[in-house]
Amino acid sequence: MPQTSSLGEVTSHDVQVFSPEDPLTLQRGGSLDEVHVRYETYGNLNAARDNAIFIAHALTGDAHSAGFHPGARKPGWWDTMIGPGKPVDTNRFFVITPNILGGCQGTTGPASVNPVTGQSYGLDFPVLDMGDFVTVHRRLMSHLGITKLLATMGGSLGGMQVLQWALSYPQDMTSAVIIAASSRLTAQNIAFSAVAREAIMRDKGFADGHYVEQGTTASTGMSIARMMAHITYLSEDAFAEKFGREPQSSGLSHGFGADFAVESYLRHQAETFLDRFDALSYIYLSRVMDYFDPFADPDSCTLIGQHPMHVLLASFSSDWRFSPAHSQRILGHLVRAGVPTTYKEVASDMGHDSFLMAIPDYLDTVAAFLERRAS
Amino acid sequence: MPQTSSLGEVTSHDVQVFSPEDPLTLQRGGSLDEVHVRYETYGNLNAARDNAIFIAHALTGDAHSAGFHPGARKPGWWDTMIGPGKPVDTNRFFVITPNILGGCQGTTGPASVNPVTGQSYGLDFPVLDMGDFVTVHRRLMSHLGITKLLATMGGSLGGMQVLQWALSYPQDMTSAVIIAASSRLTAQNIAFSAVAREAIMRDKGFADGHYVEQGTTASTGMSIARMMAHITYLSEDAFAEKFGREPQSSGLSHGFGADFAVESYLRHQAETFLDRFDALSYIYLSRVMDYFDPFADPDSCTLIGQHPMHVLLASFSSDWRFSPAHSQRILGHLVRAGVPTTYKEVASDMGHDSFLMAIPDYLDTVAAFLERRAS
Repeated sequence: MPQTSSLGEVTSHDVQVFSPEDPLTLQRGGSLDEVHVRYETYGNLNAARDNAIFIAHALTGDAHSAGFHPGARKPGWWDTMIGPGKPVDTNRFFVITPNILGGCQGTTGPASVNPVTGQSYGLDFPVLDMGDFVTVHRRLMSHLGITKLLATMGGSLGGMQVLQWALSYPQDMTSAVIIAASSRLTAQNIAFSAVAREAIMRDKGFADGHYVEQGTTASTGMSIARMMAHITYLSEDAFAEKFGREPQSSGLSHGFGADFAVESYLRHQAETFLDRFDALSYIYLSRVMDYFDPFADPDSCTLIGQHPMHVLLASFSSDWRFSPAHSQRILGHLVRAGVPTTYKEVASDMGHDSFLMAIPDYLDTVAAFLERRAS
Repeated sequence: MPQTSSLGEVTSHDVQVFSPEDPLTLQRGGSLDEVHVRYETYGNLNAARDNAIFIAHALTGDAHSAGFHPGARKPGWWDTMIGPGKPVDTNRFFVITPNILGGCQGTTGPASVNPVTGQSYGLDFPVLDMGDFVTVHRRLMSHLGITKLLATMGGSLGGMQVLQWALSYPQDMTSAVIIAASSRLTAQNIAFSAVAREAIMRDKGFADGHYVEQGTTASTGMSIARMMAHITYLSEDAFAEKFGREPQSSGLSHGFGADFAVESYLRHQAETFLDRFDALSYIYLSRVMDYFDPFADPDSCTLIGQHPMHVLLASFSSDWRFSPAHSQRILGHLVRAGVPTTYKEVASDMGHDSFLMAIPDYLDTVAAFLERRAS
């Protein structure tokens, strides 16, 4: 297993990548006149400009994937994966992580101010497509002067962005790492997303998407959405191991408060989520996942089948949000197209969130794959 | 498989079973001065009074378990199981189904009027225990002049009531049929219940439980709770088979409406639920399930181990709300106590709701068990 020394202090950058003279044309029609992107980079781009690894984040992630913001006590969300001596070794690789289009952590999204109206977009923000994320990612790549990435990498929605990118523009990358992702949500997956959006949009504080101007918040809906989503991020075994039926403190009170430890945990998760995430971003980004179905296009693998690139697919045995069957479906399509693809099912009882955890077999697999690509 | 002729038209009855002179003393302390029970009966009690089968309903069930209310087009909730020539054969057995204490379909519950205040109980209603349901069931039995039941039967929460009853008063019954039930919810089970209650109680229309007086409804919270619960009642395969990724009507509109068929289905489920169920009942009844843990008492099986009775346990292979492991845990305890117990895992891909469905192997198993008990 790689060493785990820390990246230390890191900061974010902001750049405008689309403007009224050069708007972002969207996959489903329409355009955005202004797109700002927040991103972080770690390590150094080498002279050959061929050591860059692009990290795409999951639904509620952000540009801060590793290291510590000044004064912070918690590192970035993928600090297990990225840093000196870690699988994405910042001593060797130049790492780029942007906040996603439609997000709420510095990149333009539905809660941003629409320059035309001077008010937040709200539900006037266009419905996005996985391909729109790729368009913005490519523009950032261009801004950084990189024409070919050593790897694109991501877990969950991050992996879905990487898959779309690899299918549409395989010439942009030497390899792609797609972790705990899906090429097509099941009806049950869509159902969970639908209930989350319903909770948010029916919260009176959502104010039809105008909560910024109204000074309200959809805090109840967001809490419910987050608590429910969190159940799907862990396996039943993980819940049993972490909490069992333990009371929160001194015995069960037999009432409607957070009496069991698991209830207290979910409420805490919901509260911290409210401080860092936006209701409109939640509904816009989750909806992109529902519609994503790249292999519905019979020609989806034509380009990737023609380019020399390698793919690493990884899934986790206890993941019931995007079970190993989801990764195996991607594998089937890529193998039929002749793409050299390594598939690893990692044994883990921690469910979907395993992709964020320090599981030696998983980290070693990623490290070995990147080592091979770099040498 | 048994025949499936219809029971025809049925009606409900109401009876007061506890009064200020003879209040209901609750398991966790406190009492209720008035308890009314709504119930239905089908078939005829024989002269020996030994052909009665008692049906306990699940979380959102009611007293109407079979046949048709005058003018209704849908039969009772367990019409697949109960009727002439069906497993619970109304030509042979006298069938009793009450609405549960704490419910909202005719039996006293938290939305009922508190005779002391003249207003609905709201959150002043006492937190209930599984044993309280049993106390009220026994009183109804007494009212009907029955001292021993041929069988007690129920699915899900209904099966949990039957388990508690069989452990506490095995002398009341010749047999018990416990279907898709649990003797102890897992942390994941509790988590789903907790999110549902959170959605209801944080809905402003819930008005701290005083929505009856305030003239409001917790319709948003109840809709969210029902939609989420419904996801757990079906298996992932059942969702895939019923809906897949089909659009609701003519293609996907790419917006935030009910675009996929599964979204439309869940919204419809939520709407019809609002017409028939009460928010306070939902939180009170679901909470009883969270706390239920009868085998935590080391003496729990002493009585049942001493009485001559038979138990049928059934689970469904794709049930992930109360998986076969839940039934197997009950089996383990009963077998260790020497209780003659038949365990059947029914192959079904329809998830927890299988217990309501016409699955031949399942219905035949119940029919054979009851036939044996009756002869």
